[in-house]
Amino acid sequence: MKQPVIVLINTSHPGNIGAAARAMKNMGLGHLRLVDPQQYPSAEATARASGADDVLAAAQSFASLDEAVADCTLVIGASARSRSLPVPMLDPRGCAALVHSQPDPGRVAVLFGRERSGLTNDELDRCHHLVQIPTNPEYPSLNIAAAVQVIAYELRLAAGIAEPAAAPETDYASAEQMEQFYTHLEQTLIALDFLDADNPRQLMRRLRRLFTRSRPDQNEINILRGILTATGKKIR
Amino acid sequence: MKQPVIVLINTSHPGNIGAAARAMKNMGLGHLRLVDPQQYPSAEATARASGADDVLAAAQSFASLDEAVADCTLVIGASARSRSLPVPMLDPRGCAALVHSQPDPGRVAVLFGRERSGLTNDELDRCHHLVQIPTNPEYPSLNIAAAVQVIAYELRLAAGIAEPAAAPETDYASAEQMEQFYTHLEQTLIALDFLDADNPRQLMRRLRRLFTRSRPDQNEINILRGILTATGKKIR
Repeated sequence: MKQPVIVLINTSHPGNIGAAARAMKNMGLGHLRLVDPQQYPSAEATARASGADDVLAAAQSFASLDEAVADCTLVIGASARSRSLPVPMLDPRGCAALVHSQPDPGRVAVLFGRERSGLTNDELDRCHHLVQIPTNPEYPSLNIAAAVQVIAYELRLAAGIAEPAAAPETDYASAEQMEQFYTHLEQTLIALDFLDADNPRQLMRRLRRLFTRSRPDQNEINILRGILTATGKKIR
Repeated sequence: MKQPVIVLINTSHPGNIGAAARAMKNMGLGHLRLVDPQQYPSAEATARASGADDVLAAAQSFASLDEAVADCTLVIGASARSRSLPVPMLDPRGCAALVHSQPDPGRVAVLFGRERSGLTNDELDRCHHLVQIPTNPEYPSLNIAAAVQVIAYELRLAAGIAEPAAAPETDYASAEQMEQFYTHLEQTLIALDFLDADNPRQLMRRLRRLFTRSRPDQNEINILRGILTATGKKIR
């Protein structure tokens, strides 16, 4: 069973990166990606990783979230808060079931945001789902490594009971392909004078949500890109 | 719903105590007991507790496990290893269900042993059940606070769905009453020349297991003590 990718975004405390690596290895996960960590590599990360220094050594660092999830087809963001945005919310058990029902769980990313502020709106816009760990409403904010521990625990339980996906495999568009599409779409909408680059409002965010919910496959994204290319030619 | 007691035994690293307090508060647990912590109080514990310093401040310290669980009627030990002793093993979900099916979950203790060596045999002998978190067999040993996080998470889920116990309330003997009984039993067996104090073998451990499985109530423990008292009078 291929294992999903854990992505830590802009982590402040290197000890949390090490503790997250340990939590992952305890639960049999090995794919850690770091986006712009504030202090890394670090002796404190290695110390807290304990015997999971191999996970740390294999961790890949990226300058941006888009690069970190470029090859992923399903992105799930861990969030402590209820969000006003209509992103489907999962509990950890549902999240784990969803991951292991995918044709390739190895192309799923679970994102963990900053210690104090979590995920930005831009990052949330990349998420197909959010996962929220049920907590004491008076003290909801888990330590990052503790949150990774809970999600990884549920992923391990689900991996043990998951049936191979019965549905035919879908060749979903990757996050990189989706970003290329959004860039193309935005340029096209500007060219169409539908989107005012100086006053974009929430337009691109709303469109992102729409397409994120639909999860286009390769064929569909090619069609969408073809429409944009055709539109561009007409305008010129 | 009354919440169970978390007991940390002989913890080496004060940071783990703080992180465990935070994990507890995140999941709505507030009763922390410490048995012979190696460095405590400690600035590192307070730092890692983050906003859960109230849990830390309310934590009680004890010199021995027997004192820490004296008022408890059900004791569950967290264990990373499979044990040869016939102590019933639970997974975290089953553990949480058991805790919340008790007449008073506030009189349940969940024990977490030393970072390196876990629980001693003496401590295991006080446990009615063990709970084992499923892990990667090649790297099974969770950080103490991470283990507390997983158990507390399952306890929170179970608290949310637990029905009030339908069974009539049983007035179980407390751990203190059981220890008094075992002391009395051992003295009686020595007086009977059944137990050789210089070569006790595993006799008391076996008897402990037997009575631990049976979980005597107040009436039964009074009867057992009465038998021992009567035996003592006969011998003199």
